[in-house]
Amino acid sequence: MLDAKRLFPAEPTTRAIAERLYETVRNLPIISPHGHTDPRWFAENRPFPNPTELFLQPDHYVFRMLYSQGVRMESLGIPQEDGKQNANPREAWRVFARHYYLFRGTPTRLWLDYAFENLFGLTERLSADNADEFYEAIAKKLATPEFLPRALFERFNIEVLATTDAAVDSLEQHKAIKASGWKGRVLPTFRPDAVVDAEYLGFQENLKKLGEVSGEDVSSWTGYLAALRSRRAYFKANGATATDHGHLTALTADLPLAEAARLYQRIYTGKMQAGDVEMFQAQMLTEMAGMSVEDGLTMQLHPGSVRNYNTAVYEKFGRDKGADIPSPTEYVRALRPLLNKYGNEPNLTLILFTLDETAFSRELAPMAGHFPSVKLGPPWWFLDSPEGMMRFREAATETAGFYNTVGFNDDTRAFLSIPARHDVARRVDCAFLARLLAERRLDEAEAFEVAQDLTVNLVRKAYKL
Amino acid sequence: MLDAKRLFPAEPTTRAIAERLYETVRNLPIISPHGHTDPRWFAENRPFPNPTELFLQPDHYVFRMLYSQGVRMESLGIPQEDGKQNANPREAWRVFARHYYLFRGTPTRLWLDYAFENLFGLTERLSADNADEFYEAIAKKLATPEFLPRALFERFNIEVLATTDAAVDSLEQHKAIKASGWKGRVLPTFRPDAVVDAEYLGFQENLKKLGEVSGEDVSSWTGYLAALRSRRAYFKANGATATDHGHLTALTADLPLAEAARLYQRIYTGKMQAGDVEMFQAQMLTEMAGMSVEDGLTMQLHPGSVRNYNTAVYEKFGRDKGADIPSPTEYVRALRPLLNKYGNEPNLTLILFTLDETAFSRELAPMAGHFPSVKLGPPWWFLDSPEGMMRFREAATETAGFYNTVGFNDDTRAFLSIPARHDVARRVDCAFLARLLAERRLDEAEAFEVAQDLTVNLVRKAYKL
Amino acid sequence: MLDAKRLFPAEPTTRAIAERLYETVRNLPIISPHGHTDPRWFAENRPFPNPTELFLQPDHYVFRMLYSQGVRMESLGIPQEDGKQNANPREAWRVFARHYYLFRGTPTRLWLDYAFENLFGLTERLSADNADEFYEAIAKKLATPEFLPRALFERFNIEVLATTDAAVDSLEQHKAIKASGWKGRVLPTFRPDAVVDAEYLGFQENLKKLGEVSGEDVSSWTGYLAALRSRRAYFKANGATATDHGHLTALTADLPLAEAARLYQRIYTGKMQAGDVEMFQAQMLTEMAGMSVEDGLTMQLHPGSVRNYNTAVYEKFGRDKGADIPSPTEYVRALRPLLNKYGNEPNLTLILFTLDETAFSRELAPMAGHFPSVKLGPPWWFLDSPEGMMRFREAATETAGFYNTVGFNDDTRAFLSIPARHDVARRVDCAFLARLLAERRLDEAEAFEVAQDLTVNLVRKAYKL
Repeated sequence: MLDAKRLFPAEPTTRAIAERLYETVRNLPIISPHGHTDPRWFAENRPFPNPTELFLQPDHYVFRMLYSQGVRMESLGIPQEDGKQNANPREAWRVFARHYYLFRGTPTRLWLDYAFENLFGLTERLSADNADEFYEAIAKKLATPEFLPRALFERFNIEVLATTDAAVDSLEQHKAIKASGWKGRVLPTFRPDAVVDAEYLGFQENLKKLGEVSGEDVSSWTGYLAALRSRRAYFKANGATATDHGHLTALTADLPLAEAARLYQRIYTGKMQAGDVEMFQAQMLTEMAGMSVEDGLTMQLHPGSVRNYNTAVYEKFGRDKGADIPSPTEYVRALRPLLNKYGNEPNLTLILFTLDETAFSRELAPMAGHFPSVKLGPPWWFLDSPEGMMRFREAATETAGFYNTVGFNDDTRAFLSIPARHDVARRVDCAFLARLLAERRLDEAEAFEVAQDLTVNLVRKAYKL
Repeated sequence: MLDAKRLFPAEPTTRAIAERLYETVRNLPIISPHGHTDPRWFAENRPFPNPTELFLQPDHYVFRMLYSQGVRMESLGIPQEDGKQNANPREAWRVFARHYYLFRGTPTRLWLDYAFENLFGLTERLSADNADEFYEAIAKKLATPEFLPRALFERFNIEVLATTDAAVDSLEQHKAIKASGWKGRVLPTFRPDAVVDAEYLGFQENLKKLGEVSGEDVSSWTGYLAALRSRRAYFKANGATATDHGHLTALTADLPLAEAARLYQRIYTGKMQAGDVEMFQAQMLTEMAGMSVEDGLTMQLHPGSVRNYNTAVYEKFGRDKGADIPSPTEYVRALRPLLNKYGNEPNLTLILFTLDETAFSRELAPMAGHFPSVKLGPPWWFLDSPEGMMRFREAATETAGFYNTVGFNDDTRAFLSIPARHDVARRVDCAFLARLLAERRLDEAEAFEVAQDLTVNLVRKAYKL
Repeated sequence: MLDAKRLFPAEPTTRAIAERLYETVRNLPIISPHGHTDPRWFAENRPFPNPTELFLQPDHYVFRMLYSQGVRMESLGIPQEDGKQNANPREAWRVFARHYYLFRGTPTRLWLDYAFENLFGLTERLSADNADEFYEAIAKKLATPEFLPRALFERFNIEVLATTDAAVDSLEQHKAIKASGWKGRVLPTFRPDAVVDAEYLGFQENLKKLGEVSGEDVSSWTGYLAALRSRRAYFKANGATATDHGHLTALTADLPLAEAARLYQRIYTGKMQAGDVEMFQAQMLTEMAGMSVEDGLTMQLHPGSVRNYNTAVYEKFGRDKGADIPSPTEYVRALRPLLNKYGNEPNLTLILFTLDETAFSRELAPMAGHFPSVKLGPPWWFLDSPEGMMRFREAATETAGFYNTVGFNDDTRAFLSIPARHDVARRVDCAFLARLLAERRLDEAEAFEVAQDLTVNLVRKAYKL
């Protein structure tokens, strides 16, 4: 089912170059500096439950497409906020299989086919006809030692895997992994959204917990900042090399101290005025950049997603259910306060992501091609696809070069898709380099060197791994 | 003049696949669910007058290009608002022929060449030298029975053709077609812009007429809505399966009933406050979606065109004279009120169009890839072109899939260009599928199935034909 | 090092067509209607000082990339505002050579390699290893008569070269060139930013100087306009055929006379209110268009760059140091006042540029495809690259055609890069035309004609050369 030459351009000369390049990177270790896998999997190393819970229910790429074509989320067994989950896993799998044709032309299909064939030896296309056969074959293998999380981690040749963790997290799973003596390198990432975004569900509770776990008095601006510094140090001590920030916009601010303190008071006491929530997030991005200058944690910014856009789905099923929709995102004016303060710092690495690909050639590549601190994250989310990745290279390289980019992120909670995602990225990068070589815009030796850099060297450097 | 392999990629493997795919769709019937042909042509079935009135004067794609290069619209015989029309048709045709080189690289050229060769047997390129020869050959054929509107309709193998009709239209032409016994299927489409946009020329008169034709009292909000419901039912009874909405933006609103009623009062009495016109249109989109949930009419939204941008041209020549210019268009925040109210309704089909192609990957594909109601209209207007269509498939497919798109719309008032337009769309879709196949991203059997779906199945389903 | 077929597509049929097209345009004269070379070079005809001052220090494309990767601008010898310049030229060159790999995949690399090989016979790739060898070879040649500015001008086969000059400039260098009897055609371009943008450094001084050089009383609106008219006439008398306007946005205005006069009073006396600076620039664009209708000077508009974005760099090193970042740019609403007043004038040529490539298909091509006055400038700045140029042709041609574009601008202060830049543009245009021909969208004869038009005819016409 999987063709060895997939994703390479059809033109024979270019294809042959792409193949040669790919041969030199296909077996390099996977470095996954940003994602959403659950550290508990590796701490406990228990079998994954069943095909539906593994492939379908946690992956909003999968069920949003089914939902868009009239499949009810209840029939897929998506867990509800009220704790109910109304579907038999095998029945849900059949619904999925029957609609598998919907994924034609999508990256989800590439990732799933890769896992079906390479991990489970299933070489037919999934359909209504073979749904039960797939289910049983997968279920059977999941019960074997070779399919335990740690075994898969090793089989996938993962050199390092970063998770994303709340600022108040105890990191006990990460500690348990370390304490177990297992050599797999699983690192936490500091994600403070829930204590920075005053509209985040449970924000006041989160602040309280931040005070508790840090031992700082978060009722004042200085105490709040000290608490965050303390948590960053804790994460760093537990292996973290990066922070991550998910904001609605890229807005930053650099308020005078007294004004920032007053703003925090209103936020802390819940007496917000119009614009306070946004301004506080803006100020906090600059504060976080300042802390990165101090402690050296690489800073990642993921702006531009309107979260929980479909109210009915959000109320019934909660966050991350396929209803986050990108929105036009401006970077130049938004980032100016932060960049004017810290943009020239040699010790800052600020990785910018976008869901608005118009920003690549217009704003992001010019910024990355000037500021020592700014680097471009790989195509994110809906853009993490063959066409999206190719457009990224085409739009960004001429202005930012290759060396202001940072390799690939799989950014996934679907553990089994990780090798497939890195494989797609390597193939597309090789296809791009092959075209540059075929058009005599790079030398042979350079193209091979850049392929290595894009696959392992740039990510190691940017994330200090 | 027309090469059999035109628009297929040059790379031989991909080209051969494209050809094979195209062979299976080239002769499928034309389904035209959205356009601007005149139903009177098919009701009366009289000969088209002359080449200039057929090809030049109604087609703003043609004369806007000539105008942009200094050709005066008067010299082309474009009808003026004062009733004058200052050009001899043959002279106008010569001006057109002399400037035909301006269309190099444009879709207009593809459409015209197709019609010249396939309908009139003219296999040279139009130029100053052969202008008269073309004129005479076309004029001669137009006088024959084979070139009457109904004969062409049948020769074009049109399965169904939708027109666009004002909400207050009597649909007498459509009734006459039906009454004639002719079997051609020509359907109306409900377009209420002129009774929804308070800045539309003659808006107050239009409202009055809406009251008359519906028998409802449009002086109240409930009466106005009842009048629209009544007209929709009338359109549906006369064959309509869809509505169409041309708005400056995609803004929607969901006002409380009392507030909506007060807003309508201000609109109805002409006592608008700042923002009322836009807010009323926004509210009406949501109302129309609600009516679509009730009556099942497919809803089309065409936002983002700044109409009548060139005041001097508008004042002398009126609407639709090539001076409508697209503008950046936001969908996510704009559509939220409507989608929160009706977006999850199984009975709603909302087809979104755009002139701002940045929205395809950023906003529209993610929305279509989640909401059961949302589908993506084909590339519209300036994007209805080989490059535009290809970019649409490249940008939208990975997130929305093929099955949240709705086939092709020719959207034209140039009847003779319809086969050419559908042919271009089929060729480009086959070229796109051929690449996916050549890059092993689709199976052979799948590609052939998708080609059929894109050509006839998806449009039939989306427009309930 | 330079392959004869570079930048042509790999597919053999298309490549062969591209080569044939390119052979017919490669040796056509260079027409450079917009750029930033120093007329003093040609007036004085003195040797260029050394490789570092020639290639590195004036070219912000080069040093912004080095800076983005942590190379300090001081170490490159970039001149500082305080007059210091802290680097030995040979040392700076070594830093540059050591980091030359950063330019892989960028147009800067294409331009530099071209100059190294074609002008200096250096056929290796620049690196740390051969840095001194390059330095010496270049320095040696720069001292020879063949490398004097005028000799290079002739060797480059430049038919005409336009510089960009402040409105108050005496044009003495241009006069000296003319007086010298040398036949090279070097023309000034009228650039009034410094007397139109009230936030421009030294604005009040500039106004004063404007009054002096024109002999007009600039304390009144009418006097100010008369002074500008006078300067335009002076530029025209000295060979200028165009004006150029660099604005933050494309905003235009058409204020009543009295209001414009009051606005100018506030600007002139430095008593600006909020919005005055922007509104004055907006009004001045319309005034300048009106003067172009009178005097026939072609008007160029370059909007959308946020200048001097990095405050620390600006304060130490001044303007044009690689820290100008593009920003989303709207044209449709912004240009309406100007276009409603002058857009239909046969005597106006308004060339629009953009750094926001989303505007090409959405706004700029539709405007150029309608208004007789509007033409599309070539891809500008970060878009002046193989990928950027190709996307421009793909996005703009179908709506604007070829004939509403104006050929290529090199827009450079790097004199030695001029032949390389024009060569890249010719190659990319030929590659685009080759694809249209291979896909049977153009005839053979047409493609050859268009190639000539894109290279020399359109630029001569648009700039009245």
